[in-house]
Amino acid sequence: MTVYSVPLREMRFVLHDVFRAADTLTALPGFSDSTADLMDAVLDECAKLCEGVLLPINQSGDQEGCSFKDGKVTLPKGFTEAYKQYAEGGWCGLTAEPEFGGQGLPETLDYLVNEMIGSANLSLGLYPSLTQGTILALTALGTAEQKSAYLPKMVSGAWQGCMCLTEPHAGSDLGLLRTKAVPNADGSYSITGTKIFISAGEHDMTENHVHLVLARLPDAPEGSRGISMFIVPKYLVNADGSLGARNAFSAGSIEHKMGMKASVTCVMNYDGAKGWLLGQAHKGLAGMFVMMNKERLFVGSQGISVAETAYQSAATYAKDRIQGRAATGPANPDKPADAIIVHPDIRARLLFSRSIVEAVRALSVWTHINVDISHKHPDAARRQHADDLVGLMTPIVKACGTGYGSEVANTCLQVFGGHGYIREHGMEQLVRDVRITEIYEGTNTIQALDLVGRKLGIEGGRLFKAWISEVESSLKRLEGRNDMGEFTGPLKDAVARLQALTMWLTEEGKKDPNGRGAAANDYLRFFGLTVFAWMWVLMIEAALAKTDDAAFTATKLAVGRYYMQRVLPQIASLDAVVRAGSTSIMALAEGAF
Amino acid sequence: MTVYSVPLREMRFVLHDVFRAADTLTALPGFSDSTADLMDAVLDECAKLCEGVLLPINQSGDQEGCSFKDGKVTLPKGFTEAYKQYAEGGWCGLTAEPEFGGQGLPETLDYLVNEMIGSANLSLGLYPSLTQGTILALTALGTAEQKSAYLPKMVSGAWQGCMCLTEPHAGSDLGLLRTKAVPNADGSYSITGTKIFISAGEHDMTENHVHLVLARLPDAPEGSRGISMFIVPKYLVNADGSLGARNAFSAGSIEHKMGMKASVTCVMNYDGAKGWLLGQAHKGLAGMFVMMNKERLFVGSQGISVAETAYQSAATYAKDRIQGRAATGPANPDKPADAIIVHPDIRARLLFSRSIVEAVRALSVWTHINVDISHKHPDAARRQHADDLVGLMTPIVKACGTGYGSEVANTCLQVFGGHGYIREHGMEQLVRDVRITEIYEGTNTIQALDLVGRKLGIEGGRLFKAWISEVESSLKRLEGRNDMGEFTGPLKDAVARLQALTMWLTEEGKKDPNGRGAAANDYLRFFGLTVFAWMWVLMIEAALAKTDDAAFTATKLAVGRYYMQRVLPQIASLDAVVRAGSTSIMALAEGAF
Repeated sequence: MTVYSVPLREMRFVLHDVFRAADTLTALPGFSDSTADLMDAVLDECAKLCEGVLLPINQSGDQEGCSFKDGKVTLPKGFTEAYKQYAEGGWCGLTAEPEFGGQGLPETLDYLVNEMIGSANLSLGLYPSLTQGTILALTALGTAEQKSAYLPKMVSGAWQGCMCLTEPHAGSDLGLLRTKAVPNADGSYSITGTKIFISAGEHDMTENHVHLVLARLPDAPEGSRGISMFIVPKYLVNADGSLGARNAFSAGSIEHKMGMKASVTCVMNYDGAKGWLLGQAHKGLAGMFVMMNKERLFVGSQGISVAETAYQSAATYAKDRIQGRAATGPANPDKPADAIIVHPDIRARLLFSRSIVEAVRALSVWTHINVDISHKHPDAARRQHADDLVGLMTPIVKACGTGYGSEVANTCLQVFGGHGYIREHGMEQLVRDVRITEIYEGTNTIQALDLVGRKLGIEGGRLFKAWISEVESSLKRLEGRNDMGEFTGPLKDAVARLQALTMWLTEEGKKDPNGRGAAANDYLRFFGLTVFAWMWVLMIEAALAKTDDAAFTATKLAVGRYYMQRVLPQIASLDAVVRAGSTSIMALAEGAF
Repeated sequence: MTVYSVPLREMRFVLHDVFRAADTLTALPGFSDSTADLMDAVLDECAKLCEGVLLPINQSGDQEGCSFKDGKVTLPKGFTEAYKQYAEGGWCGLTAEPEFGGQGLPETLDYLVNEMIGSANLSLGLYPSLTQGTILALTALGTAEQKSAYLPKMVSGAWQGCMCLTEPHAGSDLGLLRTKAVPNADGSYSITGTKIFISAGEHDMTENHVHLVLARLPDAPEGSRGISMFIVPKYLVNADGSLGARNAFSAGSIEHKMGMKASVTCVMNYDGAKGWLLGQAHKGLAGMFVMMNKERLFVGSQGISVAETAYQSAATYAKDRIQGRAATGPANPDKPADAIIVHPDIRARLLFSRSIVEAVRALSVWTHINVDISHKHPDAARRQHADDLVGLMTPIVKACGTGYGSEVANTCLQVFGGHGYIREHGMEQLVRDVRITEIYEGTNTIQALDLVGRKLGIEGGRLFKAWISEVESSLKRLEGRNDMGEFTGPLKDAVARLQALTMWLTEEGKKDPNGRGAAANDYLRFFGLTVFAWMWVLMIEAALAKTDDAAFTATKLAVGRYYMQRVLPQIASLDAVVRAGSTSIMALAEGAF
């Protein structure tokens, strides 16, 4: 069984000490209630749900999995009851509009709520996150009637939402999708086609399901510019809000997966199912990105959720398991061996894990504060600046949160030796569960291509410049702070190298059509490590300012030093590999693979 | 379903073109028959077994797993029949002494046989490998009676051997083990205790099982110097060779694991089981290393076995799956999209995989040639030199073969996108199966500590110097070869840096008790990458000398260039991290984790 207690203290440190989030958020229209006290109370409440309800069914959920019979999906024992408690707590509508029953709270808070839910039970947490994505799209694009028909039930968690994009032959390349939508006389459409990898496409936990399905109208242009989005409910909704006829779609099968076994993944068949256009015809991909941007940040948080649980479990085991002796002589001479935490290798694994988890958490909180600013700030320029920062950081949060999340889970499994490989301790489940986060909502390479192929190129690097101005402002503030030189020095160096590499890449991209693609993953990783270094500088600054808890400050300094001395140096190799260009990648003939 | 056909051509290239193995082997006493033709015939024969018998039950074996009832273990469908074919082919005794029914063939050949068996079915291949380890120990340490009682049945594969080391509280630290051996009046011993993680400890595939159990005699000193090894058969063996009474031990349960589900892992309870001392009292650990050294090289080959299958599967998928367009314009304008192999990211994953697989295969063959020399060469100095090389390379083959094996499996899974995460394509099984290889037969950190804490220190670096002399001889031979400068240049640089780092580490080890432990994993990785660069230089040299197949040579050049330009540069960061020392690792107080 894994060990997890919600790291409330760490979350509050980032929220209040590092970013003074309440100051920023309460100044935004609509968020005046989001004081530090209120946010703390929300986090406390959610922590109870996570530790008391969601965590206890995480391992059994994996072992039992979902079952499928005659088009019906049954979830593992306890899931429906746990989900009901989640929904009754109002968690599904935390950030939704009050007009539709939501609590209208900041995305920043939602990030921390999602992080802890994911740590407790990644599979269960995925269900409402899909509803939340659907709520976003309906809120942004729906007509007044659509909103009133669907949103209240989704905000309350009574209905499940899901996103239906992928088809057997169309994954990363959605332009290839074939599902058809034919107009009916009554203004609705008949949807026909097959979708795969549909998380939460069908189950017995909610009374209705609302699918947002991407499909082509008869007059659609080819490729990604001919895709429209449709609302396709499982049960049609009568004018009075009651449920009507069963719609003509159903789950054809469910997938057997590596992990996330309590999160159902369906093949969905639409056989002339009734749907309604959401947003404009042929503009479905833009609508999809309304959900996708939130979902990508959410998936980044999933990576870190698992990493936190892996870290806590491994740290607990390392202090308990005795094996071998410290290199400096017995640390615990009364016992036949020392706790394995005396060994440098075990400590290095734990420190690596923690330095990553804390950096990604800080980055996620900072990014979500900017999400809130980009939504609510009265000043359009401030909104744009914040939106630029979010746009630039989204691929980094997603790809680094999940890529390093997987690495942390694996390195923490290794702390357990052979015990990590067996089911009992739960570590192998974490490794299996987190693996999908590197793939779904756009593989990590898709994220890297979004960064180098799109985000860097917008208006001569406007997004990159917006971020650099933020880092420079931090460095300027800390100029002459000798107590921080060991942190600001490596950050300055990394930023300078990143700027040089970004210029190199921009030039290379003009000369070599494969240049960006060849560089993308390693460049993103370099960027992420530099952003993490910045986060560590901000955390150290805040920790040094905290004079009430010397042990806490000492811990932050120790973990931050580990990051600067033993993690950040990875950029040296990434730099060299990016600059190696695409020649050696493209040379080999296809037939020789 | 994964794709695998035995890479016979690659194997022959390494065996014949790169290392001219037959020249060396046939010159050794007892190996005069091991000509290139004979070895080729053996490989062809084994390839049929792998492709026709072992591969087809790999996926079903994973899905069905092993079952346990009333102390009895049942293996998945088809395993007993497949194992019988394996045994009847004489594969179990490939390297065993002809005196006991073995074929007396070189370990070099056995490596390639094991590599292909592991690629086809890692779980099935583990069973005989354990018997083979047991055969080694019995051959080296057994009395004439013990040998004649056990060896013929084990060499033929009729009986299963296994190694019983780990106990619940004693894994990496075997000094803690508690299983007791009390002498009986008849010269046998009564063994009592519990062993865990016993691969092949019990099953229904063979008529008898022979356990080699580590236990303590009543007068045993504490710690690892008080461990003895005992032969403990499941059914006692009568004087005439027939099977007698059932011995007093049994499987208490089997483990539910992340992968290797068709390879049974037992908890074994010995309740006064009858055993016989193998080798000297209290010298059991030395006996264990007779098996362990072979097993460690074998486990390294398991890593590469899985990596090869992952590579072949991903390359096949990448040429078939169409998604997106090449950056240089449509490669396949008649289809709605190009095969994903046009994308730099996909190619980079495949090239990385292949550059690692080929380097580890070459390294393994070279190491096993030295194993054979160390066993058979008439000149003691030559035997010692070869043994030094093997001793130095064993931790590198084990840790890099499996660490990179895992990385390759994961990167190849990613090529499949979401399809990699579901059971159908078999990629997630590869990732789950290979994960244990980083742990068993000594975790990869135990390997790294063996390298820096033991192997480097022997007689002022004798082993390291032996290896350097080999590399320098290659570099000297290639001096002035302009056509190889792009390969020898990076190798020279890496070797120089490795020498400097090794000196730094030796000094650091004297000053800082935690210095070696802090450096071990990264230092080993640096060393491994340098050795791979050397292997690539040797492969390129051989490929350029091969004038009969321009396409083959071109492929080797392309993959070798990829390695030099995009994999080897990892050493830059590893260098920096090793030199960062242990301070940031050891600083944090235990309670703060």
